[in-house]
This record gives sequence, C-alpha cells and structure tokens, in this order.
Amino acid sequence: MTASNTATPRLAEAPPPGWQSRYDAIFDAALAKLHGEGRYRVFIDILRNKGSFPDARCFAGHNGPKPITVWCSNDYLSMGQHPKVIAAMEAALHDVGAGSGGTRNIGGNTHYHIDLEAELADLHGKEGALLFTSGYISNEATLSTLAKVLPGCVIFSDALNHASMIAGIRTSGCEKKVWRHNDLEHLEQLLAETDPSLPKLIAFESVYSMDGDIAPIHAICDLAEKYHALTYLDEVHAVGMYGPRGGGISDREDAARRLTVIEGTLAKAIGVMGGYIAADRRVIDVIRSYAPGFIFTTSLSPVLVAGALASIRHLKSSNVERDGQQAAAAMLKRLFAEAGLPVMSSSTHIVPLMVGDPVKAKHVSDILLAEYGVYVQPINYPTVPRGTERLRFTPGPTHSPAMMRELTNALTEIWQRLDMPLAA
Amino acid sequence: MTASNTATPRLAEAPPPGWQSRYDAIFDAALAKLHGEGRYRVFIDILRNKGSFPDARCFAGHNGPKPITVWCSNDYLSMGQHPKVIAAMEAALHDVGAGSGGTRNIGGNTHYHIDLEAELADLHGKEGALLFTSGYISNEATLSTLAKVLPGCVIFSDALNHASMIAGIRTSGCEKKVWRHNDLEHLEQLLAETDPSLPKLIAFESVYSMDGDIAPIHAICDLAEKYHALTYLDEVHAVGMYGPRGGGISDREDAARRLTVIEGTLAKAIGVMGGYIAADRRVIDVIRSYAPGFIFTTSLSPVLVAGALASIRHLKSSNVERDGQQAAAAMLKRLFAEAGLPVMSSSTHIVPLMVGDPVKAKHVSDILLAEYGVYVQPINYPTVPRGTERLRFTPGPTHSPAMMRELTNALTEIWQRLDMPLAA
Ligand SMILES: Cc1ncc(COP(=O)(O)O)c(C=O)c1O
Ligand SMILES: Cc1ncc(COP(=O)(O)O)c(C=O)c1O
Repeated sequence: MTASNTATPRLAEAPPPGWQSRYDAIFDAALAKLHGEGRYRVFIDILRNKGSFPDARCFAGHNGPKPITVWCSNDYLSMGQHPKVIAAMEAALHDVGAGSGGTRNIGGNTHYHIDLEAELADLHGKEGALLFTSGYISNEATLSTLAKVLPGCVIFSDALNHASMIAGIRTSGCEKKVWRHNDLEHLEQLLAETDPSLPKLIAFESVYSMDGDIAPIHAICDLAEKYHALTYLDEVHAVGMYGPRGGGISDREDAARRLTVIEGTLAKAIGVMGGYIAADRRVIDVIRSYAPGFIFTTSLSPVLVAGALASIRHLKSSNVERDGQQAAAAMLKRLFAEAGLPVMSSSTHIVPLMVGDPVKAKHVSDILLAEYGVYVQPINYPTVPRGTERLRFTPGPTHSPAMMRELTNALTEIWQRLDMPLAA
Repeated sequence: MTASNTATPRLAEAPPPGWQSRYDAIFDAALAKLHGEGRYRVFIDILRNKGSFPDARCFAGHNGPKPITVWCSNDYLSMGQHPKVIAAMEAALHDVGAGSGGTRNIGGNTHYHIDLEAELADLHGKEGALLFTSGYISNEATLSTLAKVLPGCVIFSDALNHASMIAGIRTSGCEKKVWRHNDLEHLEQLLAETDPSLPKLIAFESVYSMDGDIAPIHAICDLAEKYHALTYLDEVHAVGMYGPRGGGISDREDAARRLTVIEGTLAKAIGVMGGYIAADRRVIDVIRSYAPGFIFTTSLSPVLVAGALASIRHLKSSNVERDGQQAAAAMLKRLFAEAGLPVMSSSTHIVPLMVGDPVKAKHVSDILLAEYGVYVQPINYPTVPRGTERLRFTPGPTHSPAMMRELTNALTEIWQRLDMPLAA
C-alpha cells in the first residue's frame, strides 16, 4: 500500500517565484482587515497564582512578572484553586498518569470517566451524561449529530447563541430558523409556520454570557411541547453557579426534566476543562455512537476528570461559593451605578460595562493594565455585535470589597481622562 | 432584554401522547442498526497503573478490579507515566491551579502556552505554532478556516484521511477531490484537471494509524510545487516517534520546510492531551484570528501544557523510547508472522492483525480479555472500511519480550479454537 518516496522526481529548481506570494497576499489581506477594524487580538501573557486568585502575574511588555488582579476570568467560583480539586488531580496523576492514551472506545474509557458521567447525570436529574474534550465540541458534536439523525429536522436557534452551537447547527446541514434573542413571540411564529410533521429542535442558552441575561426556560419548554419540538439548553455559564446543587438555571427553576439535552462545561465555574451533555439514556447512546467529535478523539485526561468530579461534588452541597459570587456581583453593579459608569442591566453574576467602540474599549483596558494592575479584556466583534464593544467583569467570591472600590475609582478616573460620558 | 418566565402560560395537561415516542422510535432505529451490524460499541472500563504501564486494572463484568495488559494504547512511548511529565504537571498544578479559566483571548493565555508553542515551532522548524484542545479540533478548525479564507479553494484529500480532517474539509464548504490512498498518479491527475488559477490545498497524513503505512511526503510536495498547492500534513501518529528529535516523518525525511502546515497531537506519543499546528507566522496568525474552534473555547489547562512541554523536551534529545518502540514492533511482527497469524504489512510501530469480520474480531477480543487478561480493542467500521475489521496492537518500549510471547501463544490458541486460518 505504501507508495515509494521517489515515485515522482524531486523538482530540481525552486518553485516559480510568485505562486507562494499569491497565497501570502490573501493571508495578509485577511489580517490587515482585522488591524484596520481595530480588532486584531494580542493575547496577554499571564500566570495565575494558585491559592491567591484573582492575583496573577503578567509577563508581556514588562521587565519580569508584574502582579495584577484578574477581573475577566471564567473560573467564576475560583474552583480551579480549591484544595479538594487540586488534591483529586494530584491523586489521579499519581494513580494513572498524565493522559488517557486513547479514544473512549479504544483504551481511553477509565473509571474516572464513568464516575463523572454518573455524577453529571445526577446533577441534572437525567438518565445519562457524556463527556467531551470541551464545551465547544460538546455543542458542535451533539447539535450536528442530533439533527442529522432526525430526517428533515428544523433547528430553531436563538439569535445570540454561542459560536459552538452555530458551528454544530451549520455542520448538521439542517434548515435553521433564527429567533430574535429571548423573543417568545418570534419563536412561536417560526414554530407555527413550520410543517408540523417535521422533527424540530429548539436550541438556546440559559445565561447569555456577554449580556448576563437569562432565557425563559419554562416558557420555551411550553412552546416546545405545543409544537412537538425537542429542546437543547447550553448551561455553560450557569452550571455550578445556580440552583440548590449547582445544576444551573434549569435546576433553580426545576425545569431540567422538561429539557431534552442540557449541555455544560467543566472549564468555567467547575474550574477545570472539558464539556458534557446530560439527557435520557437513548439520546446519550445515539450521540455516543454517532458523533465524530466524540468518537474520533482522545478522551479527557483522567487528571482533569478527577478534578471536575471533586469540584462538582463539592458544589453540590456547598453554597458558600455561589453566595459569595452573587454578593460580589451585586456590590460591583451597585458601585459602578453609583459612580455613573454605564453598567449594563444584568440579572446574573456577569457585570458588563458598555463602551460601544473597539478602539476605546482596548484603550481603557490598556490603561487599566499598565497603570492600575487590573486585567480585564475588551470584548469585540465577533464575540459581541459591532457597536456594542464592552468591558466584561466577572467578580467572584475571592474579589474583596477593597478590590472593587479600587476598580471603581480607577474606571472613574479613566472615564474622565478620556472624556467618556458618566451618568451621575 | 430578559423575557419573563411566565410570558406563555404553562400547558396544564401533559403533552399529547405519541409525539415524544416518534422521536424515540427514530433514535431506537439508529441504535438498532448498530446492534444489527455487530458494531454497537461497549466501552471497557479500565484504569492504567502509573509506573507499570502496560499493566492496568479492568472493572466491567468482574468482581473488583482485575489486572490486565493493555495492547492498544496510543500512549505509544509510555510518556504518560514518565517522571519528568508527572513532575511538571504537579508543579503547574501547585503553581497556577487546575484550569486556565478562559479562552486564549480572555484570560486563558498563560506563559505555559507561549512556551509550548515556541517549543513546537522549533520541533517542526516552523516560525510558529498554535495550541488547540485536541488533535481533532486542530484538524477541524484549521482545515475549515484555511480553506474558507482562500476564495474558491479546492481541497485534495487522501481517501484514508482521519474523520477530523474530513470534518474540517466539510465545514469549509470547499470543493473536495478525494485521491486514492497514497496514489500519486491519481493525485496528479486530479491536480492537473483543476483550474490552475484556483487556490489548492493537499491534505494527508504521514503515518496512517490503522494500516501503519507511510505517505510519500517529498513526492507529494513535488506535486504541490508543480501545481502551486499548499500542503497540510497530519503527523498525529508520528510526532515523538520518528525523526532525530521526534518531529515526525517530516523530520526524519527532512521535509518539514516544504510543508505549509504540520498538525499533531499531544495525546498519543507525547502522553498527555491537546493538539496543535505548526506553520509560518502568517498562517498561524490567520488561524489564530479566524478559527471559531480556536477562538471560542477555554484554552488547554496549564497542567496539561506543562506536561506536554516536559514530554516534548525529553523526546527531543532521548532516543531510548523511540528505539525501544521500534524493537518491540519488529519483534511482535516477527512472532506473529512465525506463528502464521495474518499480520498486515506495516512499515511502522503499528501491528494490525486482519480478521475481516466485526463479530469475529469482537469475539477474539472478548476471549483475550476474559481468559488471558489481554486488552486489545477490535477495530470496526467506521474507523476502518467494512470487511477489513481487525485487531490493532501498539507494542511500545514497556512491552517485554515475555509479554509478546504470551500474547502470540494466546492468539494462536484462539485462532485454532475458532477455526480461523493460520498461514504456516
Ligand atoms: C455559551 C457557551 N457555550 C460553550 C462554550 C464553550 O465551552 P468550552 O470553553 O468548555 O469549550 C462557551 C465558552 O467558552 C460559551 O460561552
Ligand atoms: C490521524 C488522526 N488525526 C487526529 C486525531 C485526533 O487527535 P486527538 O486524539 O488529539 O483529538 C486522531 C486520533 O485520535 C488521528 O488518528
């Protein structure tokens, strides 16, 4: 089967000048477009300090590491440094080693994976759960596979759904109907005008992470039942943080049993890395058996799985972290509002500050880092729509009141320096 | 923006019976198809023993853990238990914690990531490298983005390319031309008949992991230069194992500089988890800036990154593991051939044994596990074409000659018991 290495003679000369540079010109143009729009991204180089998060060290553009405070982490509850999580990961590292060594089907199915799937199924009150290497791939693989298995399926997608859900919907090749964000009338209109005999799937999120608003889960489930649609809920920004056991908004509102699929990540409030879905046994088995993004990839490292297991178990019974986060978010919103800063209304732990311009958002963020040791990343298109560029703060249980007052003062000073309007 | 929870009245009655069961029937049919074809997958539940791999413990269907020997791991060089890797992961765990807490752009870009990318760029002699959460998503994201950025791009794909490459090519929406596996004449024919003015990309693997054969890299690069095509090489089953520094087949054959993109995994010979590409600075920047599968996902845990860094650095200068693996593979092939077992010809570390039937392959594998404590997973469709179902052994530096002789004797006994033909 192996063809010989010398089946074609090597070209003696260099390739004709010019053809490579035609590719280069296309790539350069793609990059120039980003620079031109002020949204070329430069990654800031940091190391968080375990045990004292939100403190961290920043490397880029300084002589040696400089201490900073992180205000934009999605390790929302600081579980990434929780002693139980660290201890569980260390134990797994020494028991079974660094990686799983295979796909779930070929050598990579460990006892840790099975335990965590059982734990996640229980967390969401579902019959089963399935682990993926990330929340991104859990959305992409599940949505594309579910819709492919259902012939003629039509997907109803909230306009602000995450890129990974959009990727999955696109891959499915199904007809897609986008409903205006959280607009139930529009959703019902689209459902009503669709052939009743076709399979349907409504895909949405619970907490929308850039605005901090929440979907009306029960009302959407009502429509799903009325129009015989399956439901798919991304709880990535709610798992661990809402509900008496941290099962998300669907846990808090006792709606989990009404949803076909609940999707989550292990990388945000859980503090580790990985993604999953929870659903009834049948749906789990279909995705497990048919989704390329689940089948053809090395399974999550058992070290990560052990850490996630410890984190979820802790958050099932502890409310300290959730309460601390809600208190911090409420205080920061109040301080921002009192200072006249344009804080966006948010019913969750997310505190967005509207700037409305990509260059200004980056400028504020640069000053915060250089002069105040505050790290908050500006959020630009395509993460949010153009013209709604913002700073997005994620205060958590380890952000102290003193830190919040310093942050508010810094922002007020910068807002005045840059002649940006304050409300009060 | 938030709609109310009670905008639509809850349905008082239960949903009409019947509509849910229509979905269930479709799911059941999808699963029944797999059962009917003898390729419904049951995952075996194992834990590897760090420090004494290939020894492991098996859980399912036994009273308590039972010791087994793993013969189908892709932790090819046992780096998943290497003391340097374990120590580096433990240090990172204690220095920065469990996860990165964000996407690369928003808080998840650590010094570890930057160091590993520099190390990978150096390993492949390229200007830059980019990390992904898995090899699967590195293929999916890079191929789809590269081809989307090049207007009118035509992709030439080897017929045996991995599912993750196929996923990326499909997502790109480009025209795709499939060339017969490793058939240079067919590739040239397809290139020659394509409009010379269109951008072109040739996508292939170095080591094909199910057959163990190798692509003629230089000859393919010759064709790429002749027809002005970019090249994309998946080195997932070669990185760490071939070349003087473990840069893969392109390292061994001094071909890396001729390739546009080299893709690899951190989950097989490197022993940890994650994926990457290496390429010139311009290509890296385009993928970094445009690929949803890179942008919209939490970055690799720094703990994994630290482990991969230690593993790659070690394998850059140590040949012990590579030599041990090659010696083990040569010995196992010889033992199988001498016993008359239908070992497939393979020029690499992969030792496939042809069975040609999914039910028989599973039967042999079941007996090996139950009676001999040998774990080797049967490989069925869609991983390999129907009718070529096989057992695939991956001997490594920690499989001893005694283990290999026992394995050969076990297989010979089973082959005779099941009346399967032996050659000699
Ligand atoms: C709504 C939503 N879904 C899914 C993801 C992907 O999760 P992960 O980071 O685990 O890939 C994210 C962010 O990363 C997200 O914001
Ligand atoms: C050829 C090939 N490419 C890519 C992958 C995916 O790599 P990963 O396991 O890191 O997702 C695999 C197997 O898993 C593979 O065999």
